Amino acid sequence: MQTRTSMLSSLLPEEADGALIISGENRRYFTDFVSSAGYLLVTKNAAFLLVDFRYGEAARKQARDCEVAEFKKLGDTLGDLIRQYNLKTIMLEGSAFTLNQASETEKLLQKAGTQAIKTDALDKLIGRMRIVKTSDEIEKMRRAQRITEDALSDTLRLIKEGVTEKELALELEFRMRRNGAEGVSFDLIVLTGKKTSMPHGVPSDEKVRAGDFILFDIGATVDGYHSDMTRTYVFGEADSKQKRIYDTVLQAQLHALAAVKSGVTCGEVDAAAREYIAQAGFGDLFGHSTGHGVGLAIHEAPVVSQKSDTVLSNGMVITVEPGIYLPDTFGVRIEDMVVVTSDGCINLATLPKTLTSL
Amino acid sequence: MQTRTSMLSSLLPEEADGALIISGENRRYFTDFVSSAGYLLVTKNAAFLLVDFRYGEAARKQARDCEVAEFKKLGDTLGDLIRQYNLKTIMLEGSAFTLNQASETEKLLQKAGTQAIKTDALDKLIGRMRIVKTSDEIEKMRRAQRITEDALSDTLRLIKEGVTEKELALELEFRMRRNGAEGVSFDLIVLTGKKTSMPHGVPSDEKVRAGDFILFDIGATVDGYHSDMTRTYVFGEADSKQKRIYDTVLQAQLHALAAVKSGVTCGEVDAAAREYIAQAGFGDLFGHSTGHGVGLAIHEAPVVSQKSDTVLSNGMVITVEPGIYLPDTFGVRIEDMVVVTSDGCINLATLPKTLTSL
Repeated sequence: MQTRTSMLSSLLPEEADGALIISGENRRYFTDFVSSAGYLLVTKNAAFLLVDFRYGEAARKQARDCEVAEFKKLGDTLGDLIRQYNLKTIMLEGSAFTLNQASETEKLLQKAGTQAIKTDALDKLIGRMRIVKTSDEIEKMRRAQRITEDALSDTLRLIKEGVTEKELALELEFRMRRNGAEGVSFDLIVLTGKKTSMPHGVPSDEKVRAGDFILFDIGATVDGYHSDMTRTYVFGEADSKQKRIYDTVLQAQLHALAAVKSGVTCGEVDAAAREYIAQAGFGDLFGHSTGHGVGLAIHEAPVVSQKSDTVLSNGMVITVEPGIYLPDTFGVRIEDMVVVTSDGCINLATLPKTLTSL
Repeated sequence: MQTRTSMLSSLLPEEADGALIISGENRRYFTDFVSSAGYLLVTKNAAFLLVDFRYGEAARKQARDCEVAEFKKLGDTLGDLIRQYNLKTIMLEGSAFTLNQASETEKLLQKAGTQAIKTDALDKLIGRMRIVKTSDEIEKMRRAQRITEDALSDTLRLIKEGVTEKELALELEFRMRRNGAEGVSFDLIVLTGKKTSMPHGVPSDEKVRAGDFILFDIGATVDGYHSDMTRTYVFGEADSKQKRIYDTVLQAQLHALAAVKSGVTCGEVDAAAREYIAQAGFGDLFGHSTGHGVGLAIHEAPVVSQKSDTVLSNGMVITVEPGIYLPDTFGVRIEDMVVVTSDGCINLATLPKTLTSL
């Protein structure tokens, strides 16, 4: 059976005898094993997870598609494997090794007569593997999305005049984690009133007031997999300007969703939202990309931007999240996370998107 | 006035014309400014915080002891500064730059005719600065400790037969954050029964049962600064073995605390705890170091271990946390965080340490 580690083995370029992976995210991707430290060595025909005494027993029980080597001194165990498999060159995970870690590891490799390859080539190989999700991965993201939606539905009931952004963010997170989320996908974004005009705003002690938009950009993690969703509500009654902007963003989002399918480029999906917003006269007020891939990282390939010519294919999971931001006034963003299919997409988000008064 | 950036300027070695810092922790240390991205360039007589459009306005208002340069293209702005200050060599923060980030930055530097120094020398310089805390830093840690203690006192009241480790950890975290903590110092550790024997245990759905030890290793952050404390309680009545082990750990901890003062080595503090435990016959069951420095990082210099010959000096903040772990039976650890003074130490922890039945 093709496993992830054997897939990586087969993808290694001729000039690399092995690959050394240290990020928690990629160690988990390849072995399903979670720990705060460890080294995954993948050669052209084998894979070894090197862990210290803290993780030996658990790794032997839980890690899949690799052999577990418990080390006392990393250099000794790594050296033994290098000699056994005659590894002359090893690619380092360039997005994870710091300069200091690389320098220490290089010394160990040099002692064993091995040369380190310090480029982003390994990251690119792994990125190509991770960009398409299995049904198992999608199921985890669906569960994360479900937990997120339940927490939001529950938290909306707490909203009243005077409650703060920070309080809402905290209540949301608490509910997600109590209901089985491993954690939050990112620091939850809850913004009200003028602050909704900042795509990168941070929850503060700002209070909810009548007539305000309230924007939630939130997500949970399940087994390492992320969800990501944005909803914008109005507290009380929306005025005509708020309704017009909201409707424009919603229509743009629906256009972009309709454009998603296998074979289409990310740039085409972005264009579907961007052109709608531009035609409505708000083109200058949509300053970010339409979306991004989601998985073990909250932002991963592909980027759904104007310039991206990445072609969507079955099993990619992306967000579709156009927005319009009126400086110092308000902003609206609506975001779903979808799975690309051959004739469209499956929307993992189920909460309604018609403008809702709280 | 000597500022942190001017101090770093004066510490730069002859062969380095500048230093480039990218970690959030060190950007915050030098400028008090918090952001998800940014570059702090320190030369021999100036300091610049380079940020993108998201942070320009906030940085100009809030960043201290540096000029703020908002960039569109990092390479252009960095290039201008390099030419203006004639920087031929720049040290990179080796503990923070990944190989990929270093490779990208080196390209930018090379275009400007500058050579990158990719060692851990800059980390060592900054480590020497950060190891001694100012009264302002200590005050933040005291506030973090206060929040931690209040949350624990409050959470202890929730303990009853059947409550799980995870539930207690979550309740603790939410109390801390509701009461003003920026976050938790680390994933909070709450362990019960046999699991207390694991120094690196993780909270699970394990339930509290009569006669169990319950161990809390917890901390909060305030303005980036961490607190760290461990308390071990018994749910119901302790038996004689539990009492004996608890008392041995407590006495060992008190011995180590009594050893702390300016001029003493970390090794001597460790020995005070270790020898007491060894004399009581449990030497093999205390497998970790006695403590570590705390500050903007939960673990930072100095290490309070057997081999450390680092000499304590006024204003260092360290933990003192011996423990005894009986495999598959139970463990006890007691930890305070203290400020080193010329004649002893100030204990930032105030919760009692006599064995308490819940």
